[in-house]
Amino acid sequence: MPLHRLSEPEVAALLAEFPGWTLRGDGVAIERTFEFGDFNAAFGFMTRVALYADKVDHHPEWSNVYNRVQITLTTHDAGGLSTRDAAMARAIEGML
Amino acid sequence: MPLHRLSEPEVAALLAEFPGWTLRGDGVAIERTFEFGDFNAAFGFMTRVALYADKVDHHPEWSNVYNRVQITLTTHDAGGLSTRDAAMARAIEGML
Repeated sequence: MPLHRLSEPEVAALLAEFPGWTLRGDGVAIERTFEFGDFNAAFGFMTRVALYADKVDHHPEWSNVYNRVQITLTTHDAGGLSTRDAAMARAIEGML
Repeated sequence: MPLHRLSEPEVAALLAEFPGWTLRGDGVAIERTFEFGDFNAAFGFMTRVALYADKVDHHPEWSNVYNRVQITLTTHDAGGLSTRDAAMARAIEGML
């Protein structure tokens, strides 16, 4: 997918489509925290995201504590949010 | 494994055994950052740690950005470091 940095209206549309995600204070990343029943479920979800991420060569910044997974999406090469982040957010939502 | 909070000498011995790990400022956790060749290697390592963690029911606090994995070990039920953290640090070192 060609790298296209999202415009402000495109970012607003993305956040409207996926209300679970919020724009980070600096405006160049979106974040969401996911909560699962236990670690097994949380890491199973992470594994699905990891397989997707490596396939499309676009990787999240993320952390995990037991049943919680925090994901940050940004595109360093674009200096902000890009269509890659939108595609990943969409893919992640499809895994829930 | 019964829960035993490590004494200061036991923590010192653990850090001497595994010099890659450092004591967090508050003294109740140990941390290490691992660097791999790429995301595939980093997440493969995380998967091995996750399988171990779920088997022994002791889970790391951790984060990943591309080829880097940061791991924090502590035992909330002990209010600090316990034999479970020592066992996990030892297991993780065996996976490198």
